[in-house]
Amino acid sequence: MDLLLNVTYQSLMTLLVAAGRLADHAPEFIPRITAYVEDARQRDIRITECITDAKGDRSLAPAKQSDPDAYVRVVGRRPDGVVIRGAKLHITAAAYGHDLLVMPTKSMKPGEEDYAVACAVPVGSPGVFVPAERVFLDGQYAHAAVFAHSLGLWERLGGVSFMVTQADELVGLASLIAEANGLSRVPHVREKIDEMMIHATLLRAGLEAALVHAHATPEGYYYPDDMFTNMAKYHGAANFSTMVRHLHDIAGGAVVTAPSMSDFDNPELRPLLEKYMGTGPDISGEYRSKLFHAIRDLTADALGGWHQVTNLQSGGGLFAQKLVTRKNYDIQRARTLALKAAGLSGA
Amino acid sequence: MDLLLNVTYQSLMTLLVAAGRLADHAPEFIPRITAYVEDARQRDIRITECITDAKGDRSLAPAKQSDPDAYVRVVGRRPDGVVIRGAKLHITAAAYGHDLLVMPTKSMKPGEEDYAVACAVPVGSPGVFVPAERVFLDGQYAHAAVFAHSLGLWERLGGVSFMVTQADELVGLASLIAEANGLSRVPHVREKIDEMMIHATLLRAGLEAALVHAHATPEGYYYPDDMFTNMAKYHGAANFSTMVRHLHDIAGGAVVTAPSMSDFDNPELRPLLEKYMGTGPDISGEYRSKLFHAIRDLTADALGGWHQVTNLQSGGGLFAQKLVTRKNYDIQRARTLALKAAGLSGA
Amino acid sequence: MDLLLNVTYQSLMTLLVAAGRLADHAPEFIPRITAYVEDARQRDIRITECITDAKGDRSLAPAKQSDPDAYVRVVGRRPDGVVIRGAKLHITAAAYGHDLLVMPTKSMKPGEEDYAVACAVPVGSPGVFVPAERVFLDGQYAHAAVFAHSLGLWERLGGVSFMVTQADELVGLASLIAEANGLSRVPHVREKIDEMMIHATLLRAGLEAALVHAHATPEGYYYPDDMFTNMAKYHGAANFSTMVRHLHDIAGGAVVTAPSMSDFDNPELRPLLEKYMGTGPDISGEYRSKLFHAIRDLTADALGGWHQVTNLQSGGGLFAQKLVTRKNYDIQRARTLALKAAGLSGA
Amino acid sequence: MDLLLNVTYQSLMTLLVAAGRLADHAPEFIPRITAYVEDARQRDIRITECITDAKGDRSLAPAKQSDPDAYVRVVGRRPDGVVIRGAKLHITAAAYGHDLLVMPTKSMKPGEEDYAVACAVPVGSPGVFVPAERVFLDGQYAHAAVFAHSLGLWERLGGVSFMVTQADELVGLASLIAEANGLSRVPHVREKIDEMMIHATLLRAGLEAALVHAHATPEGYYYPDDMFTNMAKYHGAANFSTMVRHLHDIAGGAVVTAPSMSDFDNPELRPLLEKYMGTGPDISGEYRSKLFHAIRDLTADALGGWHQVTNLQSGGGLFAQKLVTRKNYDIQRARTLALKAAGLSGA
Repeated sequence: MDLLLNVTYQSLMTLLVAAGRLADHAPEFIPRITAYVEDARQRDIRITECITDAKGDRSLAPAKQSDPDAYVRVVGRRPDGVVIRGAKLHITAAAYGHDLLVMPTKSMKPGEEDYAVACAVPVGSPGVFVPAERVFLDGQYAHAAVFAHSLGLWERLGGVSFMVTQADELVGLASLIAEANGLSRVPHVREKIDEMMIHATLLRAGLEAALVHAHATPEGYYYPDDMFTNMAKYHGAANFSTMVRHLHDIAGGAVVTAPSMSDFDNPELRPLLEKYMGTGPDISGEYRSKLFHAIRDLTADALGGWHQVTNLQSGGGLFAQKLVTRKNYDIQRARTLALKAAGLSGA
Repeated sequence: MDLLLNVTYQSLMTLLVAAGRLADHAPEFIPRITAYVEDARQRDIRITECITDAKGDRSLAPAKQSDPDAYVRVVGRRPDGVVIRGAKLHITAAAYGHDLLVMPTKSMKPGEEDYAVACAVPVGSPGVFVPAERVFLDGQYAHAAVFAHSLGLWERLGGVSFMVTQADELVGLASLIAEANGLSRVPHVREKIDEMMIHATLLRAGLEAALVHAHATPEGYYYPDDMFTNMAKYHGAANFSTMVRHLHDIAGGAVVTAPSMSDFDNPELRPLLEKYMGTGPDISGEYRSKLFHAIRDLTADALGGWHQVTNLQSGGGLFAQKLVTRKNYDIQRARTLALKAAGLSGA
Repeated sequence: MDLLLNVTYQSLMTLLVAAGRLADHAPEFIPRITAYVEDARQRDIRITECITDAKGDRSLAPAKQSDPDAYVRVVGRRPDGVVIRGAKLHITAAAYGHDLLVMPTKSMKPGEEDYAVACAVPVGSPGVFVPAERVFLDGQYAHAAVFAHSLGLWERLGGVSFMVTQADELVGLASLIAEANGLSRVPHVREKIDEMMIHATLLRAGLEAALVHAHATPEGYYYPDDMFTNMAKYHGAANFSTMVRHLHDIAGGAVVTAPSMSDFDNPELRPLLEKYMGTGPDISGEYRSKLFHAIRDLTADALGGWHQVTNLQSGGGLFAQKLVTRKNYDIQRARTLALKAAGLSGA
Repeated sequence: MDLLLNVTYQSLMTLLVAAGRLADHAPEFIPRITAYVEDARQRDIRITECITDAKGDRSLAPAKQSDPDAYVRVVGRRPDGVVIRGAKLHITAAAYGHDLLVMPTKSMKPGEEDYAVACAVPVGSPGVFVPAERVFLDGQYAHAAVFAHSLGLWERLGGVSFMVTQADELVGLASLIAEANGLSRVPHVREKIDEMMIHATLLRAGLEAALVHAHATPEGYYYPDDMFTNMAKYHGAANFSTMVRHLHDIAGGAVVTAPSMSDFDNPELRPLLEKYMGTGPDISGEYRSKLFHAIRDLTADALGGWHQVTNLQSGGGLFAQKLVTRKNYDIQRARTLALKAAGLSGA
């Protein structure tokens, strides 16, 4: 249930960081957010993040879709709340939480007021009617992106944190299987593991920089630095599949052909499996087969595919990371350096 | 059963090309090989390739293993054949063939005569006793690598052929899912597809070069060029995971979260799935979901993992490809060019 | 003067291939082109290719520039010819030819008729007035791209041809300097050279595919295949700098710190240079220093920089190669494969 | 003279960090080192680092070379000092310093005592005789690597620091030239700049991690963390040429064909150069040409080649960085993670 704690924490931090940004133009939502967060902490509930809309045809804006519900929207307003319709996709741990935290997936424009809605919905709510005290944005299109931006940041930080540990784990698997195969001293194997170590350490440096350069909201809530978080997320996502390739290259075809562990329970098969899957007095067939299965499960099976896709897509694909980088990099400083190098400092 | 035809063809071609290389030093096996091939053709049997040994501790030679059976070996010789013991791994279509074509997985040295054995064994043979007319090498360690070399070449050619079509298929999937998502005109999406096209075309050029530069045995059997086959295999294997990354980046998280196709059979769910998985009048929810499932099955699930590993490992991992390249590249010509460039032509 | 022969050949082939494409809508230029080519062959003149305009602000069309001469254009029309104004950049061997072959650098649109001009101008022509028989396009904006397209193809073929030899030359230099440094048997050095060999061979396969798949004009002039030419050009340009990195990594810092060859002429210095730059009885200091200088000159000095830039830019940068790929790849076949894989063949 | 200060600082820090490691087995050198450093500070002298030997045939150990002077060695010992012979290569700022700090370039073995020598030699010393108080190691082969290791760390830190600023500078040049060419809004240009930004920020994170994780000698001198310093150096060196490729791709061929700045002083040429090198009212021909020249000088000319080679080679080539990584990465922690993932925690 680590995941569920993680998305709950991210949900609350998203709300608190977003609240800080609503102060100037939509301050009426701040007390609601504060009260909701306080209540959630009191009741110790679990909250999941509902961000990605169905989206329909992505070349069209929300209000231009052939089905107006392609993005979650307000379809009715009452004195004491709103009625919403739509679908959210890819919700981590959706089935396990108490509340669904619904937020716009992107910035909105004039005419898209109905799509600028953020609110908390208990799982299983019929309707869906949301009482006012659980509505955190309703129509303020200019602020629609505040939530997605804040959530995206926490999503990406979560993604980077995960990938840092995963990268070390892949190094460990590579080291163990190389040893079990008798390949620990083969130069090309060692170099591949070196590259995996460098990758893991570089990612860790990125994560640490995101935290070392953290910023605080006026209320004193800390959030990681956008620029460092994004570039680390980008680097981890872009290179994950190459690290997996190194691991597969070292491990060999038995990653997908190793006998099932239950075959070891068969008294007729077990001696043969030990004989032919073991590689010497120190490496039993069962031990080595478990390594192959772990590598398969983590990198070359349904879960492996899930990692490949989610490492890329959590917090947006590679291009989304570039966009955030573009917005946060101090380009003016870089241009000043370049002008100086070109003898154009006074320009 | 394409695979089974393929490995049968590769088995027979391996024997025929190997036969050509045994002429000088082990000619006694040539008539056996010729007769076996002729008989196999007459009976139209299916043959699978048994090459990879259990190998034990790979830092030790076959005869130095703690278990002498880590590599398949002759444990008894009779006037009319040999008795062998050991295991072969990763045998494509093993359960479907009539004969297992057993060959040494690597070159052998003096003292490893018992490991220099090649023969054809009917599936289910007890024992295992192999009659002489089915033994194609027995003790001639200097020729042990002939079979592995020849088989490796056909394996790699098979791998390249497969990857050429697969690369085009990935381009097609990327193009279809980009269109279904409404992303066909987004520059970064187009550039990723461009890179996939370039990869597919480069691989195709490599395959064609392997065939255009084919060589013939004295008997007139053609086999592809080692150098071009290997570099194409290397390039395809090294870059497959990046092409998959492009596809996942374009397709999005629904690759792993799309609803099951059987959900479409549920009359209550179907309208909702059509509403939220469809993206406009031309792209139905069912059609788009099928695309996501195809992408998942081919690249992000058990079969996807199998492709990742086998694209790398068929015919040897990336380093094996380098070794063959090293042996076949015309380094003397390159050095002459370099000496000329350095003004050292007369050196 | 190989370069001059090359650009002359490319100029004439560009005209002949373009002529074939003017048949339907601008046939009046065909006899002029034919006559010009025949005359050029008779007189055995040298012709250079003038394609890249000054271009001004590239976010604006030719007719929208603040200076209307940013692209070469017709500023006057007379019964017997045209007057043109503008500048062409990056003209290989410009100073050595007899005629400048001026062509539009890109497609033109309605309203840009004055920019749709192709003609041959003798070097040193004052004015510049071009007699009608040397004008090969004048105002037919729809055909402006025909010349650039044709020239681009020959440029890229030339680029690929050059890079194929260059790639082998870099392999040779790496092999020689590794040997001279005593590093020939170091695994990571060998693997780097392996990768350079694979690169060189893959490029060669691309070049051969471009020629094997050549097409013919109605008149029987052959030109290389667009798709294969482009993907090979892309691959060579994209990876050149990595191959140079391998070479520098193997060679070491002496690439830029080796003593000057003229120091070897100094009788006091020479024994010291031989003592400390030589690496054993077979590798003299002078020989090894010449290798370092060759590496520096070809990859880490003014000429090296020129190669880096021109390998990328000849026939357009990396993105231009992608655009041509996009236009020529058989996307329909790829989509059909993908639909079949998704069980949507009948769609 | 920044470079000279830098190498002086690195020399003194190398001595101080090395001193800390000599405490157990060669403590007699510590007071000499301390006194030398104190004296150097008092006199405010400049010191250069002499580390790389001629090396001869690198497949042979120092004492096995055909010329025993291939590595600097002690050729005579007197009561009050040593006589040394040999050559050191690639000495940054050698001509500008007061003292040459001579250190072994690698670890030494029994029998190589004469090669285990570290000392400070005033520039221009005849002989070369080194008085005892300037000898910091003499024969203690087991400690030969202490100096090289310490120096290498400072070298690599210096290399990373430089590359961080350089990476930002390349971003700035790319941004300025894209703007000057009118390409600022072209998607593929923006994405290339995004990738350069990500690279620059990742390098910066690496540098910061090296410093955040700094360690102290017993005397309280701080030195950066080996692991983070190395992986940042590796990443910067491995990717520099790709960043340069992005810049060249954006800038275009004028990087190497732009007219000389002195042409702008010619009153006849200047108006033409302004007309055709300028790209609109805000971008003058002179300004844009200066940008092209800066790009050429920094990346595509003698200095550019120097950067390419020294970014790779300072503190050792790419493989040297891998070796240090291998030694410093916490492999045990990674293996524990992997065992846990494989359900083998108790193993």
